[in-house]
Amino acid sequence: MTNPILNPNAVCQVALVVKDIERASEKYARLFGVPKPGYIITDEVDKARTTYRGRTSPAQAKLAFFDLGKIQLELIEPTGEPSTWLDGLQANGESFHHLAFIVEDTQAAVKAFEEQGVPVIQQGYYEGGMYTYMDSQEKFGMVFELLQDL
Amino acid sequence: MTNPILNPNAVCQVALVVKDIERASEKYARLFGVPKPGYIITDEVDKARTTYRGRTSPAQAKLAFFDLGKIQLELIEPTGEPSTWLDGLQANGESFHHLAFIVEDTQAAVKAFEEQGVPVIQQGYYEGGMYTYMDSQEKFGMVFELLQDL
Repeated sequence: MTNPILNPNAVCQVALVVKDIERASEKYARLFGVPKPGYIITDEVDKARTTYRGRTSPAQAKLAFFDLGKIQLELIEPTGEPSTWLDGLQANGESFHHLAFIVEDTQAAVKAFEEQGVPVIQQGYYEGGMYTYMDSQEKFGMVFELLQDL
Repeated sequence: MTNPILNPNAVCQVALVVKDIERASEKYARLFGVPKPGYIITDEVDKARTTYRGRTSPAQAKLAFFDLGKIQLELIEPTGEPSTWLDGLQANGESFHHLAFIVEDTQAAVKAFEEQGVPVIQQGYYEGGMYTYMDSQEKFGMVFELLQDL
């Protein structure tokens, strides 16, 4: 056994990119028979320190969340560019975007991924934490998001 | 509040279609630091009673599973055709295929989906249960699988 890069039990979120957060939230609320959630807007670049492919990006997103009990469903409407969110929407329309895992040490996880030829796509901060999207589509068939509390 | 079509707490599985179950299982085993799981092959059509778009299909798949604690990760290598698995692999390469929910009454859930314009893609049986893939990509941004114990 090699050291794991991700703790399988730390899976926490499945996410979709959507064209219209209001419409998508409405549809999912009906599907699950729950109230339509509100949405938040990610912080602007000076606070979020968003980087895309290593460069600062003004991209933001509208986010809505559904509690699936075991995990969370996140709906993401990209605004501005460049971002991995907009890439997904432009390439595949409304579609699966990522599976998220909680990590304790983003830097160590990123290093381990990079050693396997999987670079960072996008990174940023939010109140209480940071996120990192890994370019794991080709190697693992999907994008992973690393979430770390700070 | 309308009656829910899916119980959000009944989410149980995230699945990917892959080209080679052995290679993909090896990569995920290393990622999670767990032993490489074996794979099973879905039953042949006479036992699985597989239907694709309403017609009998001889399609099968090799399946490998990883326990993520809260949910299960399923890797699917399609063999034979037609199937929603092969459709996914041909359209998008190795990629996310579906999010699965346990249902108590497949017929009722299918009826509710159909009333929203979402038909069945594929259906079949396995030892102890049945599965149904809904053509929910356009309306919900992803394919849902309904799993019912029998």
